[in-house]
Amino acid sequence: MNRLYHVPLSPFCRKVRLVLAEKKIEVELVEERYWEQDPDFLRRNPAGKVPVLRMGGRTMAESQAICEYLEETVPEPPLLPRKPESRYEVRRLCAWFDDKFHQEVTTKLLYERVNKKITKEGYPESRNVKAGAKAIKYHLDYMHWLLEQRRWLAGDMMTLADFAAAAHISALDYISDVDWHRSANVKDWYAKIKSRPAFRNLLADQVPGFKPSVQYADLDF
Amino acid sequence: MNRLYHVPLSPFCRKVRLVLAEKKIEVELVEERYWEQDPDFLRRNPAGKVPVLRMGGRTMAESQAICEYLEETVPEPPLLPRKPESRYEVRRLCAWFDDKFHQEVTTKLLYERVNKKITKEGYPESRNVKAGAKAIKYHLDYMHWLLEQRRWLAGDMMTLADFAAAAHISALDYISDVDWHRSANVKDWYAKIKSRPAFRNLLADQVPGFKPSVQYADLDF
Repeated sequence: MNRLYHVPLSPFCRKVRLVLAEKKIEVELVEERYWEQDPDFLRRNPAGKVPVLRMGGRTMAESQAICEYLEETVPEPPLLPRKPESRYEVRRLCAWFDDKFHQEVTTKLLYERVNKKITKEGYPESRNVKAGAKAIKYHLDYMHWLLEQRRWLAGDMMTLADFAAAAHISALDYISDVDWHRSANVKDWYAKIKSRPAFRNLLADQVPGFKPSVQYADLDF
Repeated sequence: MNRLYHVPLSPFCRKVRLVLAEKKIEVELVEERYWEQDPDFLRRNPAGKVPVLRMGGRTMAESQAICEYLEETVPEPPLLPRKPESRYEVRRLCAWFDDKFHQEVTTKLLYERVNKKITKEGYPESRNVKAGAKAIKYHLDYMHWLLEQRRWLAGDMMTLADFAAAAHISALDYISDVDWHRSANVKDWYAKIKSRPAFRNLLADQVPGFKPSVQYADLDF
């Protein structure tokens, strides 16, 4: 049986979970308290991070490398377009969310409010939370601008870029940090992706000590 | 004419420069003081970072997305193997260097010593420099361990992973932060990659205010 070592609200784990589910690859989810640096886990992944995917006798880390591998080995349904220019745009946006959005928003809101408590690293710094709350507006506006011109974030088809974005947005929505009144475009896009069967498993997540927002699992939010 | 907006010691720019040179794609290098947030530059890349590649009427950002695009459109010489498992390993290692190594070593040594001065952000923090100097040892040992089993970092052929690693290592070697006595394997690997014609342009870099180390441009270091 395939196994994914993960933590529920990690956007990088969520991206991989969405790709696995969309491609109908069955996987057993194992919660991994990676910050405790269990030696067994470090043997599986010297980088000491989640997600780690155990599949067909291989152990894989790094969410984007995993997603590209899944795309190459299980091509249906495709999550990367065919033309190099379009594939570039998908990969650029994956990096946008996993690097820029992650650093400016996810670490400032989710990690301050949730991860710090779980890993016993202290209390949220209000300076960071404020910076994150400001930055997410700019990012939602950028998504709005993209979605004015495109059906999905990177173009006409749903791709890895949508999953990368939805992975971050959904984790932030769990803690009520997404203002759904800011852009009808972005809300429509999220409603479309949230109602996919691949999303169900994420919407059932429960993190002890943190109740999900009222709209988190609601498809008519 | 193709154009690459870059800064000389940026490892992400160096990775793209190596790929362009290896694939014999001619490009004009334009130094971009990205930290000054010039509006023209921000129009080219809303992420406000280098590298930005202008090629065939397209403007592209995000080094890994650019490298994958170049690999798909100019396949010779190949910098990704054919088998999905091997491609996974290349991408995992690119992420290792551009994410983990970058965060633990490059930001702690190069950014503290050089970028802070250039961007007038203050003085190096000795706590960070110490942490970086400690972390690079672990990373050189990891490279040593990989190179005990493989000709190149990701396997039998030279790939993007070698360029990602050499991009960071070469920038750190400019400021004398690589201990070449630590591993003969790593030194041999770097000597091989440093003597490639694609590397010449990097070895000619000069950053005002920072003299390169004596061995920086020396092929018999």
